[in-house]
Amino acid sequence: MTNPVEIKPASGKLGVLLPGIGAVSTTFIAGVEAVKAGIGKPIGSLTQMGSLRLGKRNEQRDSKIKDFVPLYDLENLVFGGWDIFAEYPDCYSAAVNAGVLEQSLLDQLKDQLSEIKSMPAVFNQKYVKNLNPTRIKDVTSHRDAIDALRSDIRNFKETNNLERAVMVWCGSTETFQAPDSDIFENLSSFEKALDNDDPSILPSVLYAYAALQEDVPYANGAPNLSADFPAMYELSHKLKVPIAGKDFKTGQTLMKTILAPGFKARMLGIEGWFSTNILGNRDGEVLDDPESFKTKEVSKLGVLEQILKPEENPDLYGDLYHKVRINYYPPRGDDKEGWDNIDIRGWLNYPMQIKIDFLCKDSILAAPIVLDLALFMDLASRSGKYGIQEWLSFYFKSPTCKPDLYPLHDLFVQKNKLENTLRDLMGEDLITNLGLDYYDE
Amino acid sequence: MTNPVEIKPASGKLGVLLPGIGAVSTTFIAGVEAVKAGIGKPIGSLTQMGSLRLGKRNEQRDSKIKDFVPLYDLENLVFGGWDIFAEYPDCYSAAVNAGVLEQSLLDQLKDQLSEIKSMPAVFNQKYVKNLNPTRIKDVTSHRDAIDALRSDIRNFKETNNLERAVMVWCGSTETFQAPDSDIFENLSSFEKALDNDDPSILPSVLYAYAALQEDVPYANGAPNLSADFPAMYELSHKLKVPIAGKDFKTGQTLMKTILAPGFKARMLGIEGWFSTNILGNRDGEVLDDPESFKTKEVSKLGVLEQILKPEENPDLYGDLYHKVRINYYPPRGDDKEGWDNIDIRGWLNYPMQIKIDFLCKDSILAAPIVLDLALFMDLASRSGKYGIQEWLSFYFKSPTCKPDLYPLHDLFVQKNKLENTLRDLMGEDLITNLGLDYYDE
Amino acid sequence: MTNPVEIKPASGKLGVLLPGIGAVSTTFIAGVEAVKAGIGKPIGSLTQMGSLRLGKRNEQRDSKIKDFVPLYDLENLVFGGWDIFAEYPDCYSAAVNAGVLEQSLLDQLKDQLSEIKSMPAVFNQKYVKNLNPTRIKDVTSHRDAIDALRSDIRNFKETNNLERAVMVWCGSTETFQAPDSDIFENLSSFEKALDNDDPSILPSVLYAYAALQEDVPYANGAPNLSADFPAMYELSHKLKVPIAGKDFKTGQTLMKTILAPGFKARMLGIEGWFSTNILGNRDGEVLDDPESFKTKEVSKLGVLEQILKPEENPDLYGDLYHKVRINYYPPRGDDKEGWDNIDIRGWLNYPMQIKIDFLCKDSILAAPIVLDLALFMDLASRSGKYGIQEWLSFYFKSPTCKPDLYPLHDLFVQKNKLENTLRDLMGEDLITNLGLDYYDE
Amino acid sequence: MTNPVEIKPASGKLGVLLPGIGAVSTTFIAGVEAVKAGIGKPIGSLTQMGSLRLGKRNEQRDSKIKDFVPLYDLENLVFGGWDIFAEYPDCYSAAVNAGVLEQSLLDQLKDQLSEIKSMPAVFNQKYVKNLNPTRIKDVTSHRDAIDALRSDIRNFKETNNLERAVMVWCGSTETFQAPDSDIFENLSSFEKALDNDDPSILPSVLYAYAALQEDVPYANGAPNLSADFPAMYELSHKLKVPIAGKDFKTGQTLMKTILAPGFKARMLGIEGWFSTNILGNRDGEVLDDPESFKTKEVSKLGVLEQILKPEENPDLYGDLYHKVRINYYPPRGDDKEGWDNIDIRGWLNYPMQIKIDFLCKDSILAAPIVLDLALFMDLASRSGKYGIQEWLSFYFKSPTCKPDLYPLHDLFVQKNKLENTLRDLMGEDLITNLGLDYYDE
Repeated sequence: MTNPVEIKPASGKLGVLLPGIGAVSTTFIAGVEAVKAGIGKPIGSLTQMGSLRLGKRNEQRDSKIKDFVPLYDLENLVFGGWDIFAEYPDCYSAAVNAGVLEQSLLDQLKDQLSEIKSMPAVFNQKYVKNLNPTRIKDVTSHRDAIDALRSDIRNFKETNNLERAVMVWCGSTETFQAPDSDIFENLSSFEKALDNDDPSILPSVLYAYAALQEDVPYANGAPNLSADFPAMYELSHKLKVPIAGKDFKTGQTLMKTILAPGFKARMLGIEGWFSTNILGNRDGEVLDDPESFKTKEVSKLGVLEQILKPEENPDLYGDLYHKVRINYYPPRGDDKEGWDNIDIRGWLNYPMQIKIDFLCKDSILAAPIVLDLALFMDLASRSGKYGIQEWLSFYFKSPTCKPDLYPLHDLFVQKNKLENTLRDLMGEDLITNLGLDYYDE
Repeated sequence: MTNPVEIKPASGKLGVLLPGIGAVSTTFIAGVEAVKAGIGKPIGSLTQMGSLRLGKRNEQRDSKIKDFVPLYDLENLVFGGWDIFAEYPDCYSAAVNAGVLEQSLLDQLKDQLSEIKSMPAVFNQKYVKNLNPTRIKDVTSHRDAIDALRSDIRNFKETNNLERAVMVWCGSTETFQAPDSDIFENLSSFEKALDNDDPSILPSVLYAYAALQEDVPYANGAPNLSADFPAMYELSHKLKVPIAGKDFKTGQTLMKTILAPGFKARMLGIEGWFSTNILGNRDGEVLDDPESFKTKEVSKLGVLEQILKPEENPDLYGDLYHKVRINYYPPRGDDKEGWDNIDIRGWLNYPMQIKIDFLCKDSILAAPIVLDLALFMDLASRSGKYGIQEWLSFYFKSPTCKPDLYPLHDLFVQKNKLENTLRDLMGEDLITNLGLDYYDE
Repeated sequence: MTNPVEIKPASGKLGVLLPGIGAVSTTFIAGVEAVKAGIGKPIGSLTQMGSLRLGKRNEQRDSKIKDFVPLYDLENLVFGGWDIFAEYPDCYSAAVNAGVLEQSLLDQLKDQLSEIKSMPAVFNQKYVKNLNPTRIKDVTSHRDAIDALRSDIRNFKETNNLERAVMVWCGSTETFQAPDSDIFENLSSFEKALDNDDPSILPSVLYAYAALQEDVPYANGAPNLSADFPAMYELSHKLKVPIAGKDFKTGQTLMKTILAPGFKARMLGIEGWFSTNILGNRDGEVLDDPESFKTKEVSKLGVLEQILKPEENPDLYGDLYHKVRINYYPPRGDDKEGWDNIDIRGWLNYPMQIKIDFLCKDSILAAPIVLDLALFMDLASRSGKYGIQEWLSFYFKSPTCKPDLYPLHDLFVQKNKLENTLRDLMGEDLITNLGLDYYDE
Repeated sequence: MTNPVEIKPASGKLGVLLPGIGAVSTTFIAGVEAVKAGIGKPIGSLTQMGSLRLGKRNEQRDSKIKDFVPLYDLENLVFGGWDIFAEYPDCYSAAVNAGVLEQSLLDQLKDQLSEIKSMPAVFNQKYVKNLNPTRIKDVTSHRDAIDALRSDIRNFKETNNLERAVMVWCGSTETFQAPDSDIFENLSSFEKALDNDDPSILPSVLYAYAALQEDVPYANGAPNLSADFPAMYELSHKLKVPIAGKDFKTGQTLMKTILAPGFKARMLGIEGWFSTNILGNRDGEVLDDPESFKTKEVSKLGVLEQILKPEENPDLYGDLYHKVRINYYPPRGDDKEGWDNIDIRGWLNYPMQIKIDFLCKDSILAAPIVLDLALFMDLASRSGKYGIQEWLSFYFKSPTCKPDLYPLHDLFVQKNKLENTLRDLMGEDLITNLGLDYYDE
C-alpha cells in the first residue's frame, strides 16, 4: 500500500462549460437535473453508479466510486455553454429541438432548463460545412476569439459564484486537420500562428487554448484536433492544467473495443471487419460531408490496429480489412443503428462470422461520459495532476497519450488503468488478479 | 521483480489423454498434426501464438508466451484416449465421422491419425441418454472401472515411453448431478461411496479419480461434476496434482463473458438477455435430452450473475431476465449458430437493443483450448503447483475455484490473472496498467 | 365482363361483436375511434386504404376498394364484446391495461372507449391454463351457455338499434382439440354432443354456434377449432351465414407466406427454417403452456408444406426441417420479436442463408385484420354468400376451405383471389396479367 | 380455353452465346455440364424444375414446365462467348479463376469445359474503368465491331452445326448512359450514329445490334442500356426477333420484390429502406467505380416505386427514404452479403422494424436465370413472338416494357404473367384464383 495523494476538497460549486448545446449537452444536463429531482437514474455513469474492488477478493470491501474518491456531487454542478443557434437560446428549447428525451420528461424540468442560456459561439462554417449558424461571435481574429471566450469563462464563474470549472467539448466534428504543420510542434510557433491568424487553427483549438489560460481543465468529446498536439501539451504543463481527449467512445466503437480484445485474448484471427451506421440526426447530416467524415473515420479506424498489433501477429491480423461507413438516414431520427460484420478465423484458419446489430442512442450513451469526465478532470486538478490524463482513455475513441507511447484502446485495459489510478490516488493496493495466496496452505 | 519459481524441464514426451475421441478431440489432434506437417496454423491457441507484455510499455519487450515459459513443443506430444464407438476405432475414422475438418485435409494426415487408436470407454447410458455405445469396458463396479482406467494410463505411458501425461475430458455432457450429497463432502466419505458403487458417481468422476491416482493432471471440458467437488479437491492436494475445470468456454458463452464485462464497465443496465442456439451435430442430439440440457443450462446461466453482481447494482441488473435455449437443428450440421438479443438500458433508463448472430464452429473453437490446457496443466505440475488451478479460469464456462471465493467469469480479468500468473512464475513485474511514471517529469 | 351480383345496401348500423376484449380488440376499437376523430390513420387495412386495378394497365382505372364495393363506413360501426376480467369492465380500462397504445392517445379517446362495456364471458380455465378469470357467466351446460350468448347478441342489437352484426373471435388460444371425434362430423351428431355437454366442445365453439343461430357471420382470429369442422360448415349452409377462419396471420407467419412463395417462385431449395419468437405479454404467458402452444404450433407449421409442395419437389423441399419456437420473455413487453434463419439452396445445391429479425407489434398488425374481416364478412352476407368464405384466406394462418381442396397459403395467391372475387362481385374483368394485347400491332 | 399457338419444334442444337465469360457464365455452363453428367441439380431453374397448375385446383393436373412447353433439352445446348482476358482462354480456366464452384467439381468437368474457348471481345475501357483487358478485338469503328461480332456468330453456328442461337449478356456493368439522346429515338437516327461512331454508343449496344441482325434473340443481364431504347425496339420488330432485359434479378433486389409486394398487400406503410451490400469479387471492384455504380443504383432504386405507388398511397409511401449502398469488401470473396433495414408502419402509424441479412452467392443465383432466359427466348422465337418479351420480367431488376406502360416489378405479378403466358401459348385456361365454383351447390 502506497501513500495516498493529497487532494483539495470539493468545496463550493463546480462549473461545467460545454461548447455546443445540442443533443449530447442537453441530454447530459437534463439528465443531471432529472437525477437531482429524483425522477431519473444516472445509468452509464461510473462516478455515480460504479463500484470497485478494494483489497482481496474475500475481504469483500467493494466500494462505490463516489464514496471512495472525493468528487463534487450533482447538487453542486452549474452548467453553461456556447451554441450557434439563436432559435434555441436556452437548454430547454435546445433539448426539445434535439428530440432525444421525451417531451413529458423535459416538461417536468422546464424551469431548471430554461434558466440555462447559451452564449454565442466562435464558429467558422468552412470547417463544419453542413451547419448554418444563426448566432455567432463577431470576432475578426484568433486572438479576439480567445479573449471573448476567456471573458465568457470569467463572467460565468463570477456570476455563478463558482469555486472551479471544467470544459468538455460537445460540439460538432470539424473538417480534418492533420497535426503535421510546424505550427503545432511547440508553444512558441503555435502562439506565433495564433498571432498570424493561421487558417490551420480551427475553432475547437481556440476553445481549448482559452480554457487552459483560465486554469480550466479541458476534455475533448469530438475527433477534432483541438488540444491534441505538442504545443498544447506544452501549455498544459506550463500552466499545470489537465487535458484529455478525444472523441467520446459510444456505440459502434465502444463495441469494437469490447469485442476486439475478446477475439485477441483468444488468439482468433480477424480477416475483415465491416461497420456501417445509419443515423438521422444533425450528427448524421454533418458527417454526410466527406471532409467531416474523414476526421471521424480516422478516429474510428484507429482502434483495431493498436489492440490487435498486426505486426506482432501477422498470421492473425496481417490482412485485416477494416471498413467503416456512416449513412445519413432520416427515418432513424435521433436514434442510431450500427451493423457490423466480422469475419474471424479459428483453428487451422477455419472461418466464422459474427454479425452485430446495435440499436443505440448516441446521446444517451454520451451523456454519462460528459458527467464522468467533468468530475474526474476536476478531481485530477484537485489532486495536482496536469498535462495529458491518460487514465481517462476509457472514455475516448482516440485516447491522447504521450507521443512516445502507443495509445491503449482495449476497454478492459483502460478500465484497469482507471481503477488502479483511483486506488493509487487513495493509497490502496493495486489489483493484479494474481491471487495465488488464496490457495496457500 | 520477484524471484522466479523453479520449474522442471519439459524433457522427453508428454502424453495427452482424452476421454471422448469425437469432434473436439479429433479436431485438436488433427490440427496439431497439421501444424507439425506445416499445413496449418494453431489459431486460437495462446500457448502457440500469444504474446504478453513484459516490463514498461515503452520498453517494447513483448514476448511470445512459448518463448517465455518452458512448455512442451508440439513435436513431443503423444495422443491417446477412450471412446464408445467401435465403428471409429482410430482417430482418422473418428475425424472423418465428425465431419468438422475437410476431407482433403484429413487425407493428408491419414497416416498419423490412423495410428492413434482409442481404448474402450467407461460409460453408462443412463447418464447420456441420446448416445448408443457400441464398445465399452466390461466392468461391474466403480473400483473395477478405476482400476481398468489406471491400467490403461500406465500402459499408454509405458508403450509410448512418456515422461509425463495430462488428461483433458472431451466427452459428452452427462445428466445433471448436484454436488449436494454428503458423499462429495470429503475424501473419506467419497471413497466409501466408491466402494459402495454409489449411483451418484458418474463416469467422468471415475476418470478424474483415476488420473489423479496416476499423478496425471486433470482438466474437465464438459459441465459434468467430474472433479469439481470438495473430496476431489482434497485428493488433488493430498496427491499434489493439479486439477481445473469446467466446461470449455466457446461460442455464445465466450461472447457473453466478453460483452457483459463491457456493458458492466460502462455501467449500462441490462434488462434481458435472450440466447438461442441452433446446432445439428451429436452435441445437439445429446442436449435435446432435457436432463443433459439442464447440466449445460446451469453452466451457461451462471456467468452473468457473477460478472454483473445484481445485488451490488440493483438499479442496473436487479431485474435481469436471462434465458438460454438450445435447439437441435440438423441442417446446421457440424456448425453452430448462436443468436442473442440483449436489452440494455442507458442514461435515465432509455432502452437500447443489441442483436448478435454468431455463425461459429464449436470444435474449431474448442480444439486450441484442449492444447493450451494440456500444456499449461503440465507446466503447473512441473512448477510444483497442485489443487485447483484458478489461473486457467480463462478457458472455462464454470471456473472451479476455492469454495470460499467467487469464480471470476470476466474474460479480461481471467486473462489478466493468467498473464500475471505467468509473469509471477518467471519473476517478472506484474502489470497493473497504472503507468503514472511515464508522465513524471 | 360478367354481370355483377346483387348486393343489399349497407344501411343503418353494423354491430361488431368481439369475444375477448384484450390487446387486439382494444387496439382495433381505439384505432377506429382515432380514425373517426381524425387523429389516426387506419394503416394496414385493405378496406380503408387499399386500391385495386380495374381493366387494362394503360386505362389507369385503379380504384380505392371502399369506393368500389359497398361497405359500411367507420361512422356506422358499433362495438361490443365479452371478457373474463372484472378489473377492466370497459374498453378504456382494458386498453390501458393492454399497454399497446400510448396513454396520451387513449386519453383523447377516453369518452368513447369508456362507454363500451364488456359482457361476462363463457370460459373454462381447463382450456386456457395460464389465465385466471375474475368474471365469467354462471352457466351449467353447453345449451345454457349458448342461450346466454344468443340473448347477449339480441340485446346488443336491440339496445344499439343495429341493422346487422358480425362476430370476430379475438380471445385467447385454447388447448389443442383435434376435429377427429365423430361428434364434429355432421350437424346431427354435433347437436347431440351439445345436448350431452361433451367436453370436447370448447367455449369458442359455443360462440360460433350462437353467432350462426343469430344470423351473425363468424370469423375466427385464433387457431382454436371453433367453427372449423364439418358440422359447423353444414350449419352455415343450412342457415345461410358466412364463416371464415382461422388464426389471424400477423408477424412471423405473415413473413413466411411472403417469403416462401418468393423462394418457390425461383425454385430455390429450402433445407431448414428455424423460427423463434420472444414476447412478453399475455399471449406469451398463455403460449408458455405446452397445450396452448401445440394449437398454435400446428397452425404455424402448416403454411410451408402447402406452399412448397415437397411431394412435387423432393429435390428442393423433400428434407425441409421446419422448427418453430415461442419464448416468454417479459422484457419485450407488449412488443414481439421474431428471428428466422432460413437455409436455402441454389444452383447445384450451393447453400445460402437468410436471417430475418422482425421487431413487430402483434396487436398493431392484427387490429386492421379485425376491421377488414368485419366489413368483408358483412359484405359477403349482404351479397348472398354463405358457408366458408375462402376468398378471405388472405387474413389467416390456417385458412379454412372445403375439405376436398387444399388451403391456399401463398399471400399473393390469396391476394389475387380476394381481388378477383371483388372484381367478380362488381362485374369487372378478372386480372390474369397476360397482357399480350398491349404488344399487338 | 383458347387455341394454342403454333410452335416450331426444338430440333437440332441451340447455341447459347454469352458476352462475358466470367463468374456468371462459367457457373451457368459448368452447372449445365454437371447436370448432364448426373452430378448436379439445376436448382433455381424454372424451366428445369418448375411446375405449374393446369385447370382447377381439384383436378390435380400440375405439370412440369419442361413437359408442358417444347423447350430444348440440356443435351442440345452448345456454349460460346467472348471475353477480355487472354489469361483465361477457355471456360475451365475462367471458372477456376472465378472461384465460385469448388475445384473438385470443376475437375470432374475439365474436359467439357476446356473445349469451350472464348472469342476476343469488343471492349472500351472508358466504360468499365476498373477492368484491364488483355485481349480485345482490334476494331476501329462501330461498324467494324458489329461486322466482327456478326462474323463470330455465323462461324459459331456453322462450326457447331447449330439450328438456332440466342444471346444472353453476362458481361460487366458499363458506366451510366441515359437513353435521352436523339440518336436512340428511332432506327434511322441510331444507324446514322453508328455510322458516325457516336461515343454514346457503348459496346453492349453493339452486341445487341449484331445479335438482332443475325436473327439471334437477345437478353440483357446487366443494367446497361444495350437493347433498351426505342431504336432497338424498332429493329426487333422490323427483323422479328425477341429482346428482353435488363439486369438479372438476384440477391437483394430479388428479396425486395418479394417483400415489398407483401407489405403493400397488407397496406403496411414504409418509412425507410436501407440496403447495404458487401462483396469481394470482380463485380465489387467494377462497382467501386462511381460511374458504374450509378448504372446499377438506378436499376436497384427503381423497383420500390412501381410496386408501392407512392402517388396513390401518400400516407403509406409518400415519404419513403430508400438508400442503396454497395461496398467492396475482399474478405467476402465470391460470396455476397446484403443487409437491409426496413422501417415499416402499422395501424395508427406505429413503427416496426425488419432486418434482413442475406448471405448469398450472386453467380449461383444468376446461373439458372441465364439458362431459363436462353430457353424461353428461343421458345418465344419459335412461337413467332418478337419485340419486347415482357412476360420475362420475372428475371429482371429493370424489366423492359412498352414505353406507354409501367414496368411490373412485383415478383408474384411477374410470375403470374409468365405462367399465364405459357398457359395461353398452349391453349390452357388462365388461372385467376377466383374459384367460386368449388363452393356451388
